Amino acid sequence: MRTGIATVCLSGTLEEKLRAAAKAGFDGVEIFETDLVTSSLSPEDVRLLAADLGLGLDLYQPFRDLDSVPDERYRANLRRAEAKFRLMGRLGIDTILVCSTVAAAGAAYTDDDGLRAEQLHGLAELAAGHGVKVAYEALAWGTYVNDYEHAWKIVESADHPNLGTCLDTFHILSRLGTGGPDPSGIEAIPGEKVFFVQVADAPKLSMDVLNWSRHYRVFPGEGQFDLPGFLGHAARTGYNGPVSLEVFNDTFRQADVERTAVDAMRSLIWLEERTAKTLAAASARGTAHDGAVEPTPAQLAQASRANAMRLTTLPQVAPPAGLNFAEVKSAAGTEATGALERLLAQLGFAPRGDHRTKPVSLWTLGEARIVLNHQGAAGVAPAISALAFDVADAVTAAARAVQLKAQPVPRTSQANEEILQAVRAPDATEVFLCEDTRWMQEFGDGDASPQPAGSARIDHINLAQPWQHFDEAVLFYSSVLALTPEASQDVSSPAGLVRSQVMQTALSDNAAGDGGALRRSVRLALNLAPWIQADSVKGTLRDTFQEHIAIEVDDLIAHAAACRRRGLPFLPIPENYYEDLDARFGLDPEFLAALRGLDLLYDRDAHGEFLHFYTATVGSVFFEVVQRIAGYDGFGAPNAPVRHAVQFAAQSAARRAG
Amino acid sequence: MRTGIATVCLSGTLEEKLRAAAKAGFDGVEIFETDLVTSSLSPEDVRLLAADLGLGLDLYQPFRDLDSVPDERYRANLRRAEAKFRLMGRLGIDTILVCSTVAAAGAAYTDDDGLRAEQLHGLAELAAGHGVKVAYEALAWGTYVNDYEHAWKIVESADHPNLGTCLDTFHILSRLGTGGPDPSGIEAIPGEKVFFVQVADAPKLSMDVLNWSRHYRVFPGEGQFDLPGFLGHAARTGYNGPVSLEVFNDTFRQADVERTAVDAMRSLIWLEERTAKTLAAASARGTAHDGAVEPTPAQLAQASRANAMRLTTLPQVAPPAGLNFAEVKSAAGTEATGALERLLAQLGFAPRGDHRTKPVSLWTLGEARIVLNHQGAAGVAPAISALAFDVADAVTAAARAVQLKAQPVPRTSQANEEILQAVRAPDATEVFLCEDTRWMQEFGDGDASPQPAGSARIDHINLAQPWQHFDEAVLFYSSVLALTPEASQDVSSPAGLVRSQVMQTALSDNAAGDGGALRRSVRLALNLAPWIQADSVKGTLRDTFQEHIAIEVDDLIAHAAACRRRGLPFLPIPENYYEDLDARFGLDPEFLAALRGLDLLYDRDAHGEFLHFYTATVGSVFFEVVQRIAGYDGFGAPNAPVRHAVQFAAQSAARRAG
Repeated sequence: MRTGIATVCLSGTLEEKLRAAAKAGFDGVEIFETDLVTSSLSPEDVRLLAADLGLGLDLYQPFRDLDSVPDERYRANLRRAEAKFRLMGRLGIDTILVCSTVAAAGAAYTDDDGLRAEQLHGLAELAAGHGVKVAYEALAWGTYVNDYEHAWKIVESADHPNLGTCLDTFHILSRLGTGGPDPSGIEAIPGEKVFFVQVADAPKLSMDVLNWSRHYRVFPGEGQFDLPGFLGHAARTGYNGPVSLEVFNDTFRQADVERTAVDAMRSLIWLEERTAKTLAAASARGTAHDGAVEPTPAQLAQASRANAMRLTTLPQVAPPAGLNFAEVKSAAGTEATGALERLLAQLGFAPRGDHRTKPVSLWTLGEARIVLNHQGAAGVAPAISALAFDVADAVTAAARAVQLKAQPVPRTSQANEEILQAVRAPDATEVFLCEDTRWMQEFGDGDASPQPAGSARIDHINLAQPWQHFDEAVLFYSSVLALTPEASQDVSSPAGLVRSQVMQTALSDNAAGDGGALRRSVRLALNLAPWIQADSVKGTLRDTFQEHIAIEVDDLIAHAAACRRRGLPFLPIPENYYEDLDARFGLDPEFLAALRGLDLLYDRDAHGEFLHFYTATVGSVFFEVVQRIAGYDGFGAPNAPVRHAVQFAAQSAARRAG
Repeated sequence: MRTGIATVCLSGTLEEKLRAAAKAGFDGVEIFETDLVTSSLSPEDVRLLAADLGLGLDLYQPFRDLDSVPDERYRANLRRAEAKFRLMGRLGIDTILVCSTVAAAGAAYTDDDGLRAEQLHGLAELAAGHGVKVAYEALAWGTYVNDYEHAWKIVESADHPNLGTCLDTFHILSRLGTGGPDPSGIEAIPGEKVFFVQVADAPKLSMDVLNWSRHYRVFPGEGQFDLPGFLGHAARTGYNGPVSLEVFNDTFRQADVERTAVDAMRSLIWLEERTAKTLAAASARGTAHDGAVEPTPAQLAQASRANAMRLTTLPQVAPPAGLNFAEVKSAAGTEATGALERLLAQLGFAPRGDHRTKPVSLWTLGEARIVLNHQGAAGVAPAISALAFDVADAVTAAARAVQLKAQPVPRTSQANEEILQAVRAPDATEVFLCEDTRWMQEFGDGDASPQPAGSARIDHINLAQPWQHFDEAVLFYSSVLALTPEASQDVSSPAGLVRSQVMQTALSDNAAGDGGALRRSVRLALNLAPWIQADSVKGTLRDTFQEHIAIEVDDLIAHAAACRRRGLPFLPIPENYYEDLDARFGLDPEFLAALRGLDLLYDRDAHGEFLHFYTATVGSVFFEVVQRIAGYDGFGAPNAPVRHAVQFAAQSAARRAG
């Protein structure tokens, strides 16, 4: 599949955009007119630079408001177009994007498909003289032409070899449900008349389509459109031209150009694979729309070769089977490191000794494993530095991650040590890929058994994400690790709203069967607070925001009581909370007293109950202990504002104290 | 008018919110339940604190999903309500807000006004036993009850002395145009059955009303709702209770609590005055809806006393008659200060000498006056530090500003010097209020005549605003200085989108008459770039953003040529721009050559033409020179991306170089 990106997706100067696109591995770019007009590079400079970078210049865009206009205006438009055709000759670009007209207020335009076909034919004839092809696109908010079927009907009737259509996923999929035609109709268009394909994803928002388009588009896999289904239709037409990203996004426009380009490239690699899977699943079943059934590797290979796009696929991985360990980094010998060790001991974790060769120690509670890395920089507060996932084949998983543009983490290992595969997540957290826990043998006395006996495990990990990398993080964890993003939720805190995005694996098959709690192998919660900046060093995030590791136990009340006896500093829960809890749920007085006495929080939904408590914070890390009862599958979201408020008040008090 | 604010409008802990509300001068607050539940203050603590602060506790809110529910659920709701009534007794709050039900998915609720009236009557009866009044409010997205007329109909039929209605401007005005009833119908409700009035403004957005409400509300005067018209209706019912702000806004939730409270208070003072004016104008003309005619002072005084709300008004001012001067601050003796002086001289400004007693110098070009203040801190780049407006009565204008919570700028003056009134704008820029230019006599030889002869003047000033204070700035300039906000516009830059908000005076009467350009006394452009932080010191804003002063001249080409001869460093405009300009406008080749030769920019609209150029930047300041031809009333917005891109590229190059 030929990959492309419009320069408007990226921040910076035109030269910076082109260099970043090439470095990220794109085959070509669309030159967005404003980027050229505002650049000091001449068209010839741009052509040379692109050639040097091995980057195709695949499209010049946009040309607006050509059609439906009165004759005099049309002639002015042809003059304007001819200037652009000459410019394209200097750039070496052979295709121009023409958008359907958005009539100016009070303009004397004509709503007549015959006139539009005639005007587009005239433009195509002029273009032919300059060796230019015209790709006509229906804007979702076009005054007269606003769906792809209408645009194609006009192109068909204009009938000129230099005129074709451009398919844009946003303009097509944003209109589903508000009168737009189903994308399956794309297959009726001959592939050679599809001159260009632009792709963008988007969250499903209920707002006017123009603002939705201009501010909220995201890269494929970061929104809610069915892009693999769409691209499957495009592939079936026989189209084999560029699949090019055109994403207007307020955040991406501000973010670092090189990492946005990498995020963009990852999204196309993901889309390419998912499209191949959709096609393979459809051909395996003879139906087109259900990607839920996993195709076999042979079916996948066949599907990826069976169309003109030649879709490349990646090493396949299953979702992780668990969280193998989490690592917290702090500076050796500091007060904070001592406080962390004390906290783990008070939580019931047992020290399993130091690593044989590295300044790293291991703590376990049942199946929950936490590594304390003492190599933190002095002056940087303790922070979550790594997560490890249980995978079936670590080398394959790492290979997939690297093909998805994840940055490998180089590690030096002694000859007799386990070689662990690891890559860096968008927020710089290290992500380890583990097949087992043999690495535990390198700690202390080499005993790798769970200890103390018990069924505690990591329930979830909550990571703070800088706003610049939030969408990128969602795509990273879904494409690299096959986690599924749930609908995001806003939680109020005294410092502003926090967007919580859960990424998790599916419920396990025996979930409801054993009478115990619902099981998911991995639950990850990404928290976006707008004040977390990308240039924050981990551990120096603004102190009103923290990350945590949550441990699941079987009997929370007993566990909490034991923790209290060991002197654990609980996060103190306000008395008002318990009164409200009682008003809401009418709890048994004895149970309520137990909650109150141990600073426990409680939630209930139609499926089950949730008990949990939090510890005090060390640096930017705290811990949570949870118990899931019956079918409860959430995270105690109604209690999150309490946690945020108490943590905020503690920090306010600490600031005032000095 | 009794003023109030809901705690949910503000950031911080409950105690911080209460203290900030009291400090800003509010009469009372609404306690938002989450703020109490998450607080370590007991209800008794809150009551005592509020009493200490002289703050009324006017409302407890919200109580959700009471009505339309099955009987068992209703009884559980009454238990929940009774717990809240007891809590309110401890707080000393006598009114609770009950929202119309938003049915949960799959809930077996009943759509029956009779049942609702019965259930509300039952609640009111229970409330009466606790001395509590129930204010029933229609949420705009209520499943069954979503407009105020429907809510009032149910309250009326429930017929209980402890049951009334709450009117919320957002829920009412957001539904205008989508089937909601006109707010004039409010006047049919007896004032004693209006138990509470909540006010919020909002920009007119086309999106789902729930998200619009939860994220985009702003304080009165910062959006586009007709709040004075609304409040006039409420006043006519005889309502004399609190007018209380309930604003859910993502930015305010993050901003400093004390300044948000001041912004909020200013908005109510503004609303109070505007409501009195609306009532006065209506009673003067016997019609209710047109606020365009200014009432006389006697009419205004009469209207402000003629209703139970007892509306307070402010000293009246007319919009400013001009920009008297602008001040740029820089550190004495630095290279940047020298560069600024050189720039002004090259622009044609004449040095008018130093101030008699202060390290400040004056430069003029025609009627354009720029003060160079040499008292800037070392290491802080030159920045625009003050604007001065021409007003008819400076003492009155300053008194109005201070009543609108503007912070006065204390100034020391020698005995024989002009006393200038000044207040601080939200971004810390000093705003001077001048009746004349006698202050010029304190500079150099004391000559206060325009010099050199000519008709140059300040056309507009462009200020960068931190995102935390953008809405506050709009309200500041409209309420304090009677400038009118125009629709805002997004401009693309290589570092992200920039929101441009023009604030200006009306077109002058002789605008079209004299064949010359359209005249406005004052044009101000506020620029919001999301990366500008409130804690930036002026002059250390991120270097991809700058502010400028634009000078209008009568013959731009001649002026530019003279500037070039004087060696002015122009902002270099890319050749690609001129090719695009020619493609768009088909310009006369000689004229185009003149533009190209002098780095001039050009725009044209249906009303006229605009010529302009920019200088290089010193610190965070640059200058623009403009010429308006015939009816052109804009700012060359199509050229703004060129300016941003060239400035960005220059900064990128400077960063790479050093």
